[in-house]
Amino acid sequence: MTKISTESYKGVRDFYPEDKFVQNYIFKKIRQSVELFGYVEYDASILESAELYKAKSGEEIVNEQTYTFTDRGDREVTLRPEMTPTIARMIAARQKELVFPLRWYSVPNLFRYEKPQRGRLREHWQLNVDLFGVESNEADTEVISIAHKILRDFGATEDMFVVKINNRKIIDALYEHFALTEDERYRTSKLIDKKNKVTQEVYTQALGEIIGEDKATELERILSSNERLLAHLGLDNAAAKEIVDLIELLSQRGVTNVEFSPTLMRGFDYYTGIVFEVFDTHPDNRRSLFGGGRYNDLLDIFGAQKIPAVGFGMGDVSVKDFLETHSLLPAYTHSAQVHICTLTTLQRPSAFSLADTLRADGLNVSVDISGKKVGDQLKLASKQHIPFVIIIGEDEVKSQIYSIKNLDTGEEQKLKAEEIIQLLSKSHA
Amino acid sequence: MTKISTESYKGVRDFYPEDKFVQNYIFKKIRQSVELFGYVEYDASILESAELYKAKSGEEIVNEQTYTFTDRGDREVTLRPEMTPTIARMIAARQKELVFPLRWYSVPNLFRYEKPQRGRLREHWQLNVDLFGVESNEADTEVISIAHKILRDFGATEDMFVVKINNRKIIDALYEHFALTEDERYRTSKLIDKKNKVTQEVYTQALGEIIGEDKATELERILSSNERLLAHLGLDNAAAKEIVDLIELLSQRGVTNVEFSPTLMRGFDYYTGIVFEVFDTHPDNRRSLFGGGRYNDLLDIFGAQKIPAVGFGMGDVSVKDFLETHSLLPAYTHSAQVHICTLTTLQRPSAFSLADTLRADGLNVSVDISGKKVGDQLKLASKQHIPFVIIIGEDEVKSQIYSIKNLDTGEEQKLKAEEIIQLLSKSHA
Repeated sequence: MTKISTESYKGVRDFYPEDKFVQNYIFKKIRQSVELFGYVEYDASILESAELYKAKSGEEIVNEQTYTFTDRGDREVTLRPEMTPTIARMIAARQKELVFPLRWYSVPNLFRYEKPQRGRLREHWQLNVDLFGVESNEADTEVISIAHKILRDFGATEDMFVVKINNRKIIDALYEHFALTEDERYRTSKLIDKKNKVTQEVYTQALGEIIGEDKATELERILSSNERLLAHLGLDNAAAKEIVDLIELLSQRGVTNVEFSPTLMRGFDYYTGIVFEVFDTHPDNRRSLFGGGRYNDLLDIFGAQKIPAVGFGMGDVSVKDFLETHSLLPAYTHSAQVHICTLTTLQRPSAFSLADTLRADGLNVSVDISGKKVGDQLKLASKQHIPFVIIIGEDEVKSQIYSIKNLDTGEEQKLKAEEIIQLLSKSHA
Repeated sequence: MTKISTESYKGVRDFYPEDKFVQNYIFKKIRQSVELFGYVEYDASILESAELYKAKSGEEIVNEQTYTFTDRGDREVTLRPEMTPTIARMIAARQKELVFPLRWYSVPNLFRYEKPQRGRLREHWQLNVDLFGVESNEADTEVISIAHKILRDFGATEDMFVVKINNRKIIDALYEHFALTEDERYRTSKLIDKKNKVTQEVYTQALGEIIGEDKATELERILSSNERLLAHLGLDNAAAKEIVDLIELLSQRGVTNVEFSPTLMRGFDYYTGIVFEVFDTHPDNRRSLFGGGRYNDLLDIFGAQKIPAVGFGMGDVSVKDFLETHSLLPAYTHSAQVHICTLTTLQRPSAFSLADTLRADGLNVSVDISGKKVGDQLKLASKQHIPFVIIIGEDEVKSQIYSIKNLDTGEEQKLKAEEIIQLLSKSHA
């Protein structure tokens, strides 16, 4: 028989228990934070019809950047690269039965066909939070508040991250002012989106090539100061007013680490108004964590009625990096709170009986059935990071009083089953 | 723009909040039950190298029954059809660092390329529980006890299901006795596995065709009674003793709905000893729920050292059917415990402030920002199955005493924020 590789497929991760512990911790916390605002979870298959993505992204992008293949029924199938088209599909399918507004969230895994050399992952998980059916900026405020709350609930302080916001309509107003063509607008937006990835010189030159040097100089001047930009737009400009009001509303909800950032574009083509992005402020990890925005037109592709929508996606990898950078991740602990060892196999029936008693009170208990000597049984518990051990010998079987040891502190106590339950219930809380 | 279908891809499911609620309930309960025994969760990507499955299942089966495609790096990729090869790969990869025994579980989604007409799902989720590194029947006992405990923790009584067990070595001993060739053994096993799907007549004839009529008659006679079979094997037969001991051990652990079933084969080729399968006993749903067994040789394909292993897989669809059949599923409730409505938008700041107070105590609260009249706000809460509503008007803003209504009973109380927290914390527990 040929020997098969033990490596995972390129660009995806194996989750050993220590890794899954971290992922579970992150998902549990974000679920709690999101549900505090009354959001309900939905889900779908990772398999979607390819046409779902082609409608908005175009044939070429779907074929090059996603996992797309043809099944035996001649259907083109894509492993979902993002969740928003799926939620739009699901809502369009039941638009008449559903009661709006809807507050929905999901934690799907997503796939993208990255070129291997870029080193980015081909599969990641992403929290998606969406609010459907509210036109007013209360919806934007709520969704950004949730993003903020999630990071705060992880223990982050406001100085650790910043929420940058923008309004797509502002850049549109400027394009209008400069009378740019459709093509110039598209290329300018793409360029601004990549501004931080090139030098100022390269940026200025490229902008000049797209819209001409005069317009480029003036556009750069306006965008270089928020005050100047707002003055240029005028106080009665609706797009500017949306931003100013949103910052005020967020401040009333306790979200004060907010910055108006007129060059924030966000990659997706479907945003129609407010966009936002959360950045880590730590010098070692000064990068985009996640973002979202308004996308009022996404149901169009299903021929469904327009529904206002706002939401964001938050990737597991960037959140984990953020939490690691700021030392906000807990240490690994095993699911078992106590490991019961026996001096010989003769005490096993007592061990199983004690385990059942503890389990009946909701305690997680492993019983040693390795057949190894008691010293090795203890080492096993310690290496697997199980916090407590109980050793049962002949005496313990008779007395029903057990010696329980905290492997962290070395402290040992002699306790009855009821007392063990009390001790472990406390240590778990 | 062409109109795109809102249907999901063929053979997979959309999980609307009501569906996800059921799935979350099932997964939460099984995680709790499994962790009571000190099992830790692991995970991996759904993308695996196709060779992982070809080693045990053969090229043809992999190509015909799985989603397998070639990526641009010319790698053959399969959407995992089962989790066992993945866990074997992960353990083989770290065999030297890992401390055995290992108690691991996972709840992966799995894919199979069923022919559409059979109507079976192409994606399902499956709890996988595995114990690595214990040779003795204590391991089989533990794993079967967990399967039993999961169903009991869902509220099932022992009469609702039965655990059928067998030992692959028993049928091997009979094959030895009848001096069957390798090919006869393989075909006989396949036939016995499908026994329940054909008539007795068809079965008898097919068996005669494979091993000859005399042997067929004698084999059927032996297999027709467990007592006769055990007598035939003799009391000192190791395989028979394993079964008798296992039934005794299970009974000591409180697992008494167990049946020795010598024709239980289980489909997978990698089982090497004890196999078991759990059946629903309800007349409307009398079918296999899930199963597992011993597979001591699976690490061979990686050239790794042999490690004894036993485990089972439990699919979300069959468990859900079981729970539905026996009325063991809870009614849907929304994540929000209370929906705060306001008479006009003027009271919204008070609503947000009250929501923050309740959330600080861990209560899930939605605030109405629909802009609809208060009557419609109430209807929204009721239709979304949110159990309580609070209505805030001018008086409530002044008095800080809120009217809270239970939408199930119609009962209304006037309470301060602290009292609301008490009421809702109780109703949630």
